Amino acid sequence: MSYLKIISKDKKIEFKVGDTLLNILQDNGILAESPCGGNGTCGKCKIKIIEGSINEPTEEEVKHLYKEELEGDIRLSCLVIPTGDLTVELLNTKDVKHKILAEGYMPEFDINPVINKRVHKLTKPTLEKNFSYEELLEEALEIAIYEDDHMLLRSLPEIFENQEVTAIYAGEKFIGVEAGDTSCELYGIAVDIGTTTVVASLVDLNSGKEISSESEINPQKEYGLDVLSRIDFTRTKANGLELLQNSIIDCLNNLTSELCSKNSININNIYEMTIAANATMMHLLLGVNTNSIGKSPYSTVFSRQKKLLASSIGIKLSLFARVYCLPGVSSYIGADIVAGSVVSELDKTDKNVLFIDIGTNGEIVLSKGGELSSCSCAAGPALEGMNISCGMRAAEGAIEGIKINEDGIRLKVIGNKEPVGICGSGILEGISEIVRAKLVGKTGRLKKKSDIEENDQLQYLSKYLIEEDRKRKICISSETKEISITQGDIRQVQLTKGAILSGFYALLDLLEIDMMDLNEVIIAGQFGKHLSVDSLVGSGIIPADLRGKIRYIGNSSKSGALMCLLSKEVREDMEKVAKKIQYFELSTKEGYDKLFTKCLNFN
Amino acid sequence: MSYLKIISKDKKIEFKVGDTLLNILQDNGILAESPCGGNGTCGKCKIKIIEGSINEPTEEEVKHLYKEELEGDIRLSCLVIPTGDLTVELLNTKDVKHKILAEGYMPEFDINPVINKRVHKLTKPTLEKNFSYEELLEEALEIAIYEDDHMLLRSLPEIFENQEVTAIYAGEKFIGVEAGDTSCELYGIAVDIGTTTVVASLVDLNSGKEISSESEINPQKEYGLDVLSRIDFTRTKANGLELLQNSIIDCLNNLTSELCSKNSININNIYEMTIAANATMMHLLLGVNTNSIGKSPYSTVFSRQKKLLASSIGIKLSLFARVYCLPGVSSYIGADIVAGSVVSELDKTDKNVLFIDIGTNGEIVLSKGGELSSCSCAAGPALEGMNISCGMRAAEGAIEGIKINEDGIRLKVIGNKEPVGICGSGILEGISEIVRAKLVGKTGRLKKKSDIEENDQLQYLSKYLIEEDRKRKICISSETKEISITQGDIRQVQLTKGAILSGFYALLDLLEIDMMDLNEVIIAGQFGKHLSVDSLVGSGIIPADLRGKIRYIGNSSKSGALMCLLSKEVREDMEKVAKKIQYFELSTKEGYDKLFTKCLNFN
Repeated sequence: MSYLKIISKDKKIEFKVGDTLLNILQDNGILAESPCGGNGTCGKCKIKIIEGSINEPTEEEVKHLYKEELEGDIRLSCLVIPTGDLTVELLNTKDVKHKILAEGYMPEFDINPVINKRVHKLTKPTLEKNFSYEELLEEALEIAIYEDDHMLLRSLPEIFENQEVTAIYAGEKFIGVEAGDTSCELYGIAVDIGTTTVVASLVDLNSGKEISSESEINPQKEYGLDVLSRIDFTRTKANGLELLQNSIIDCLNNLTSELCSKNSININNIYEMTIAANATMMHLLLGVNTNSIGKSPYSTVFSRQKKLLASSIGIKLSLFARVYCLPGVSSYIGADIVAGSVVSELDKTDKNVLFIDIGTNGEIVLSKGGELSSCSCAAGPALEGMNISCGMRAAEGAIEGIKINEDGIRLKVIGNKEPVGICGSGILEGISEIVRAKLVGKTGRLKKKSDIEENDQLQYLSKYLIEEDRKRKICISSETKEISITQGDIRQVQLTKGAILSGFYALLDLLEIDMMDLNEVIIAGQFGKHLSVDSLVGSGIIPADLRGKIRYIGNSSKSGALMCLLSKEVREDMEKVAKKIQYFELSTKEGYDKLFTKCLNFN
Repeated sequence: MSYLKIISKDKKIEFKVGDTLLNILQDNGILAESPCGGNGTCGKCKIKIIEGSINEPTEEEVKHLYKEELEGDIRLSCLVIPTGDLTVELLNTKDVKHKILAEGYMPEFDINPVINKRVHKLTKPTLEKNFSYEELLEEALEIAIYEDDHMLLRSLPEIFENQEVTAIYAGEKFIGVEAGDTSCELYGIAVDIGTTTVVASLVDLNSGKEISSESEINPQKEYGLDVLSRIDFTRTKANGLELLQNSIIDCLNNLTSELCSKNSININNIYEMTIAANATMMHLLLGVNTNSIGKSPYSTVFSRQKKLLASSIGIKLSLFARVYCLPGVSSYIGADIVAGSVVSELDKTDKNVLFIDIGTNGEIVLSKGGELSSCSCAAGPALEGMNISCGMRAAEGAIEGIKINEDGIRLKVIGNKEPVGICGSGILEGISEIVRAKLVGKTGRLKKKSDIEENDQLQYLSKYLIEEDRKRKICISSETKEISITQGDIRQVQLTKGAILSGFYALLDLLEIDMMDLNEVIIAGQFGKHLSVDSLVGSGIIPADLRGKIRYIGNSSKSGALMCLLSKEVREDMEKVAKKIQYFELSTKEGYDKLFTKCLNFN
């Protein structure tokens, strides 16, 4: 027997030599992230080896890890086979006790789903006691039936062919009934509708386990890339609102049926869908006009939670299924941000915590010892690979990492393919490295080729700099296709940085908090988690002083929806937090424009 | 100036010579029934002239009135032009004070519709007070909004383009909102879904006035003439239930749009539809399986009242409109009969009152000083002109009256056309006259031609009797087509009579009421009102001793739906009465078969 020691956990694990490190960790309840299932293809199960005897790095590890990572003893745990005692440090791992999810951080909470089932025995009508099925069901259930539900009535004849029935409740409220004992089959779906991506997780409401999750590009993209262009589409196209609503409903139905078929679950056993989304996405989902969101004073039609019959908006689940739309605050602080605030427990902390969701819009919530304030800033789509000359989504062939060192420029490409473009995390790391290498000055202007050639420390980079028609760019690849970062690209990232950083400072200023008194900076978002600390700090989006205080929580919008699916109490919290968050309109803050201009500069 | 005196009313009316009697009556608030609008074509505005100077009977009056009627000074008031003082007796007239309806009896009740409107002033959002429309509406209305209603949300953007809004309430519950002050536009529709006919009345909920009514043959007829054959259709045809539901929903939508276009009323200003129907029709309306109604123990899926969003079953009215389904008792005592019982105030009487709705099924409710018992009997479709050799519906060319006197057989044909068949009231009067003329004996068997020829008192009728292949029939017309009443037709009417009369006696027996202690017999039904007292008594459906106690109330199912539309209190009554009515299954009563056989005989 050999021993595995895990730093910071004070834990010693016994293991037999021969298995992979990932398996040893998982067998002991330590869930390292491994989306590819330990096949060595995703490069996610990174771990730091402190000491011990293991195999040499494999070919796959060389592919997936930067030179610096390999030099720093970072390895992929699925490809490490310990040959004796070993000490490691966890990097991206997750603790079973702390989490129940395969993806995204969640705080601990008691599982107490709103939707629940109870099994009852039926009495059938006779000539002597000739009651209606409805009355006999009430007698069996000992409750008064919700009287407006003809869907329920339609299901009764089949029910009364059985001796047992399973009643379905939303909290204490009876919502439907099924023949026989179906208490084991109780599922829900948690959804995050992002402007760009829609994610849906199938959850077993009995065990509280997330069974699996699926995502799709938001099909509304066809009608407009961002929120404002979609609002515009509903205004200018006759049946625009209907088109947008139908496309998101279709998307949710597709995701649901995919989840069902992949996991062999009957769609009729899904009783609730909880949905987090920004205000515009939520309005479009319910077919509600979005004009007021797009023009001053930017009001919503609704912001509070909504409980609907799923079928009423065309969502296909159980006949009785409900949709719960999480509550939002305002046009620009939607249910996605309220969800993130609850997942981050912003309302429960006695510290100063700043929460940032980085997307096309950057939303910031600042907790001053539990007191919540928020603002929204137009970050622009640069960090999603949009408005960038060689920009693309994070798909195969996208450059997702760029490092500059004495050997020149080194790339990390998704899928280890020939690079075809740069995605958001790539552009941010690229700019961050360009700043670090001093290829630009404070204003973001690329240095002249002649200046670089004359500079001993920059000389080695001069071959990458191209000057054409007085325009400069950094060519980072020219294999099958020239890929470069242009002066314009740098400006786009500066605009993003300026928007987020100025929002950040403005909110600290409004709440009279000194930056040094911030205890934590939480980075949320499916997308945000791909932006490394080095990139965020290097590009100046997050001030360097906060480097050690950054924490990633992944798609907290979806995590919040999932918590609402699993806990009545969280749902109540969600509503309380939505009411608590104060919204500040940055454009009305004195001196904001000046602050924004200042924040455009690199340090 | 001349004077019109009305017998039994102690009323003297001053009038100018030259106008018709109908106009004079109507000008003075006495609503004589005149469906044709005083054109002399419907023959409904009968009146008895006691004394005075008037014009001679017109050609139209000779067409529309029996010889006996003309001899008894019965005239059509729309064709009578008084030339001086006149005394008349009202026959089919209706009193304004007592009724608000153009058709069907209703007791007095206070108008207090469930649906009501209130006008409110709105505050709009500003950058400073940037509340959602939903919250601002709540503030204006001083209520919490029903939170599951996305239809409401969809309407808010348009609402907030105005300063004023009109909120719509069902009782105290807010159900919707409209831009501007629409308080004057408040309509509802009362519906009776009969197995054969569907009637819809448009009602102004502000004034309580019935504006107009439309009817259509129930389109479900295509799939089965009676309740049982429709139940069978849903069982044997894959999408049978859906077909039947869709056809009745389409019918209601057609009637609604016809009512709207004829009266220039916007469909969006109709906020409620109240519906009375038998249990099977109600189940089909809501798309609920009817199998249990068709087989022992004949239970319903539901019997109680139902309140639905109209759109949820495809009924097109205002976005916010509700459907109220009146409560029923059991499979065979439906909401139509509960409605009739309330309209007849059976629960409020301290007398013994028998209520009969004559249709394909005969339903009987007996009030013993307010205690209510009921039974149902399979009357069969004979009185609707079905299963009769020359039977037809009450349409143009149908014989609706048959008189036998010394001149032979005299007919009354709808539309004064060549006769093409016999409708229900015609066949009943025919049989009644055949019995009176002693062409049949107690058992209903037609006398031999030889016996008639030998009988001095019957001789004059022998030319009508035809004997063919040992079968006998009475030929009542041979103009363009031979029309006769066969021995089989007489048997069909006997079965109807036997079923109703035995139900009648059985219920009296169960409640231990002597027939002579009955204070009133109420004949309900669109169809029942066409059956004259003479016919009912003459055919033996109603015992002769009750001749003076018969009262007609017309389509009390529709009247009940209308009262529910206009009065919250009546609606509550409806539910109380539904719970009060006890149902007796005749087939389980000892000695019922014997009673039935006895009741087949003519007296």
